[in-house]
Amino acid sequence: MFAASADNIVTGSKLLMELLGADPSARAEIAERMRAAEHAGDDATHAIFHQLNSSFITPFDREDIYSLASSLDDIMDFMEEAVDLVVLYNVEELPKGVEQQIEVLARAAELTAEAMPHLRTMENLTEYWIEVNRLENQADQIHRKLLAHLFNGKYDAIEVLKLKQIVDVLEEAADAFEHVANTVETIAVKES
Amino acid sequence: MFAASADNIVTGSKLLMELLGADPSARAEIAERMRAAEHAGDDATHAIFHQLNSSFITPFDREDIYSLASSLDDIMDFMEEAVDLVVLYNVEELPKGVEQQIEVLARAAELTAEAMPHLRTMENLTEYWIEVNRLENQADQIHRKLLAHLFNGKYDAIEVLKLKQIVDVLEEAADAFEHVANTVETIAVKES
Amino acid sequence: MFAASADNIVTGSKLLMELLGADPSARAEIAERMRAAEHAGDDATHAIFHQLNSSFITPFDREDIYSLASSLDDIMDFMEEAVDLVVLYNVEELPKGVEQQIEVLARAAELTAEAMPHLRTMENLTEYWIEVNRLENQADQIHRKLLAHLFNGKYDAIEVLKLKQIVDVLEEAADAFEHVANTVETIAVKES
Repeated sequence: MFAASADNIVTGSKLLMELLGADPSARAEIAERMRAAEHAGDDATHAIFHQLNSSFITPFDREDIYSLASSLDDIMDFMEEAVDLVVLYNVEELPKGVEQQIEVLARAAELTAEAMPHLRTMENLTEYWIEVNRLENQADQIHRKLLAHLFNGKYDAIEVLKLKQIVDVLEEAADAFEHVANTVETIAVKES
Repeated sequence: MFAASADNIVTGSKLLMELLGADPSARAEIAERMRAAEHAGDDATHAIFHQLNSSFITPFDREDIYSLASSLDDIMDFMEEAVDLVVLYNVEELPKGVEQQIEVLARAAELTAEAMPHLRTMENLTEYWIEVNRLENQADQIHRKLLAHLFNGKYDAIEVLKLKQIVDVLEEAADAFEHVANTVETIAVKES
Repeated sequence: MFAASADNIVTGSKLLMELLGADPSARAEIAERMRAAEHAGDDATHAIFHQLNSSFITPFDREDIYSLASSLDDIMDFMEEAVDLVVLYNVEELPKGVEQQIEVLARAAELTAEAMPHLRTMENLTEYWIEVNRLENQADQIHRKLLAHLFNGKYDAIEVLKLKQIVDVLEEAADAFEHVANTVETIAVKES
């Protein structure tokens, strides 16, 4: 079930990629598909919670399952929010650097989707969380440079506020990938 | 004791309502009463922690009690901050939409106050957390539209910054209500 | 090992102090030393996690150790980010009030470094966490007044955005000190 949730995040990250190259007139339709993906994610999360409620024995600690499902849900929420804000704020053009943020998210999404099935055996997970932590550091650097660009560039203050909100939400998505990796690490520590 | 803490939050949400209709000259006095309510909340939180420290046996896991008390405390802190910022920033007029944010908070406060006494029996809590989660989604939509209004409206950039800070803090209060509901759900899952 | 991590935070807070009095031309070099301190902090955190992974028996709950190490790591990250942003944004002059924020952080760093060795005996920790909570309240008041000053002052909107980002990160550092104190309190509650 975590795998279904993570696969859905891969779908979300592909929609973010699509948004980058899209004509402003095509954005509303991408936002629509993103909303559908987010709802699918919500269903996956609720299925996990329902299963958790009705099981006497769980493979890991209930709290870790809860935390993992919540963090996967957060990622999808942040990605959906980013797309929604681009439409809602009538953003003309996304600043240079956003495509790097989204590439990092797409890479983290792939790694997370690959890692989830390994929760069964707890094997080969070390590389995953080291790499996701590395990606989060990279996202952080990109984010800081993006803000410096927005603040020192030729943007109007209100435009800066809009774009800042969007790049901040994308940074929160990167942070949420790290939370997922940290929870996986916590589970692995307990199992070891 | 959680009930006392939640009742205090109802008081806080009523003060937020009062702020909406108040003349700017009357705001300082409302902020004063809000500060008193926040101090009463702090006392309730410390009473819970003190009790927790001196008890061998607790009705639920210590960590969940701790988390519940902290999240209730957070709600009060955010509500107090919102009122304080309105005074501190000399805000002329709150933007349309803030009254919707505050109505959602007032509804969540009522539901939370009604739910707390049910922690004794763990009955009738499902509806509460479904409804608080629904309210948080609604608050999120109101918040996004408020920001779009601020960014696409006729506001001066500094005025946008002030108002954004206030509507962001109110959104954090809505998130904190969801944290409370999620902790209640976690407790219910463990008890089931 | 927590003591090493906390000593490193004292180093970081001294570098923040140094930044305050430094000529803009000297900032890059301070940022360089801050980055080195942050890397030392990362090493301390990883040493704790490695030890945690390879130990059957731990002095406290694994989750609390994890949480404590993570929060200490967060403090260092926020302090490093603040210095980096001052350089990255080419900030001319930090607004009045930042020196108060940094003094509170320096005091919290000292208290935290003094408290860590007491985790062995769990003695004399009550004063530490009461004082850190008090300092966090103070930091919060300073932060609110700083924002009011930025918003009601004679600053350009983009300059406000830059300075707000920096004072917000310093406020996050103060919050992270409180998280450390709260985790210490949680550990003490369990041990009692």
